[in-house]
Amino acid sequence: MPFDSFPGSSLALSTRMAGLHSSAIRDLLTLTSRPEVVSLAGGLPATEMIPAERISQAATRALQDPRAVQYGETPGWAPLRETVAAWECERIGRRVETDEVVVTHGSQQALSLLAQVLLDPGEAVVVEDPGYTGALQVFRAAQAQLVPVALDENGMDTAALERVLASGLRPKLVHTVSNFHNPRGVVLSAPRRAHLAHLADRYGFWIIEDDPYGELWFGTPAPVPVAAHSDRVIRLSSASKVLAPALRVGWLHGDRRVCEAVELLKQGADLCGSSLTQQIAAELLGDRPWLSGHLDTIRTVYSGRARALLGALEGAFGDRIAQASVHGGMFCWIEFTDGTDTAVLLEAAVGRGVAFVPGSAFALGSGHAHGARLCFATNSAQTLNEAVARLAAAHRALG
Amino acid sequence: MPFDSFPGSSLALSTRMAGLHSSAIRDLLTLTSRPEVVSLAGGLPATEMIPAERISQAATRALQDPRAVQYGETPGWAPLRETVAAWECERIGRRVETDEVVVTHGSQQALSLLAQVLLDPGEAVVVEDPGYTGALQVFRAAQAQLVPVALDENGMDTAALERVLASGLRPKLVHTVSNFHNPRGVVLSAPRRAHLAHLADRYGFWIIEDDPYGELWFGTPAPVPVAAHSDRVIRLSSASKVLAPALRVGWLHGDRRVCEAVELLKQGADLCGSSLTQQIAAELLGDRPWLSGHLDTIRTVYSGRARALLGALEGAFGDRIAQASVHGGMFCWIEFTDGTDTAVLLEAAVGRGVAFVPGSAFALGSGHAHGARLCFATNSAQTLNEAVARLAAAHRALG
Repeated sequence: MPFDSFPGSSLALSTRMAGLHSSAIRDLLTLTSRPEVVSLAGGLPATEMIPAERISQAATRALQDPRAVQYGETPGWAPLRETVAAWECERIGRRVETDEVVVTHGSQQALSLLAQVLLDPGEAVVVEDPGYTGALQVFRAAQAQLVPVALDENGMDTAALERVLASGLRPKLVHTVSNFHNPRGVVLSAPRRAHLAHLADRYGFWIIEDDPYGELWFGTPAPVPVAAHSDRVIRLSSASKVLAPALRVGWLHGDRRVCEAVELLKQGADLCGSSLTQQIAAELLGDRPWLSGHLDTIRTVYSGRARALLGALEGAFGDRIAQASVHGGMFCWIEFTDGTDTAVLLEAAVGRGVAFVPGSAFALGSGHAHGARLCFATNSAQTLNEAVARLAAAHRALG
Repeated sequence: MPFDSFPGSSLALSTRMAGLHSSAIRDLLTLTSRPEVVSLAGGLPATEMIPAERISQAATRALQDPRAVQYGETPGWAPLRETVAAWECERIGRRVETDEVVVTHGSQQALSLLAQVLLDPGEAVVVEDPGYTGALQVFRAAQAQLVPVALDENGMDTAALERVLASGLRPKLVHTVSNFHNPRGVVLSAPRRAHLAHLADRYGFWIIEDDPYGELWFGTPAPVPVAAHSDRVIRLSSASKVLAPALRVGWLHGDRRVCEAVELLKQGADLCGSSLTQQIAAELLGDRPWLSGHLDTIRTVYSGRARALLGALEGAFGDRIAQASVHGGMFCWIEFTDGTDTAVLLEAAVGRGVAFVPGSAFALGSGHAHGARLCFATNSAQTLNEAVARLAAAHRALG
């Protein structure tokens, strides 16, 4: 890595950079974004599900308003904050004020600003293992002490968390992707949501409930958010998976004092978001009849693709993999039961024209060597079938 | 301030937040954004100079391309990086590679990421006094030791900087707004640019050459950038003042290793910028015949407004103020020679329907009590005349 190799110490980068590095897997996946490779590795929504025409109309309309081209307010375009407050209110079942919402540059920025607002170097942060890599990176950049807690088919193992707390750990915050977990695909169960909130109140830590996928349920909606159970929860969500990533509209919702601190830090981070894309998001998120139909379409398409992928995997691998059922989101997680190292499999798979993300990419340490995250959202059933056939061929070639 | 008042220390904000607070002046100016107040306080470009129609056409065109709605590459939309590299090359007079450019969420994000990439807490940063408040805030958030150097009509006093260096200070970086300074309006002279670059090479520090206003020259272009004299310079610029703030397109250009580190930190900060607004910026910045005419129009309009403001000030205040001549940008700086405290004047002025930013808002300590920054960009000559009449009335009322 080049980041500590400056000639002359006076030009060296900050110590924070020494703990950060681009992952070898990310680099490999970047190199393999060739058109002939079917990628199950991405975390993108399906491009054909993005309402480009509707966005174009909203952009034209927004640009009639001179405010759409100027600097905006740091915590976000006021009508968008109101729309988000109403949206969050419906989910947590109590009133949400506009000043409890900050619009951010994707929910990733909310995560990054929260880490800076809440964490001093060395403080403990509980993360899920396997966990969302964007969160792990942010907490590492904040020089936090990362404490892993495992997941099972019901999401984060809150009993394991309680044992760690009982043994003396006092984390500053706990991060969870409660709905359709990235990378595990699972949903935190309703009893565990209540349990996690109870632990936050008892032991005095913040919860970041990171929820970009909650609307992408297939059969029934996910349980009420963790935030319904405690005011120590800061909820993050985003328009990226339901409208378009290019709007770069995410948000956080929670304690007003945390929102004020995030706003203050955001002034320095980027002054404000885009008035243009925030006006577009406000129009589309505020048009409930249209949005409802749009979400139904995404749910139908993604659930069909999930079924296709799971069926193909079952047919090709049988009991050589364990796979959980999938109830929403964009990802399924498999674990090889035959000892296959998925980082080794990836190289063979890319050679045969299919890519995925090995489990080790989501591990805090050296775990999850037999796991893999497969995204079903961006390919047709036919392509997913072909992808699994290639994966099976790569797997046979290894054996 | 509410940021250290959480019940229970485990919920307290990070120590970084203790050093940050919203300024009283910012709060006052927010409260006085009533339509009947003529604001000379803003830092916005003139809304009527923003090519909304052209942006709308570019948006419609960009949205034909499915890539415009998806996640983009972290360092920016490749054609925009190429356009910026060509733009920077023309200015510094040597070849600029695409991987020496990172597109950021406004140049403020470049500043914020650079502070995190380059600075450890306690390291010294030289800033201009009075200085750009967005830079002061970023360096404070990085817990740097801020060392002020004064400006005169030729920009940063590099002889004073040299004395500080000779006495033993070893800053990690020096921040300068080289062209049409915010708030002072002045231009760093050509000899001082060479001198500053020489000092960076001799004493081993980074220079951040923050240049959002460089294209807004009235008579003749500013001297070649500091970056033309040394490769220890990281140049920042932006589409906000020449196209539209709402695109949130800024950039940094400099050492490839710094760019790589910024890219790595940007992954965690917000994943990527907006593919949509970056495609719009690429089209408009790349259309040189159109851009050239557009910039000529802005220059003509702003220089006319600057003349109107300076003339009105001269007529109303005579030698009770000192004012430098203005050769570009958006701001003029005045200093009262009669002992007027501009923070006191602001309150009286707002009561009479005119606002400006008192000099103390840009000071590191308690300085610049008699200074004021007036923005001429956003009001017509007629309105500027009225604003100065109101300001003069407020000044008389104080006396």
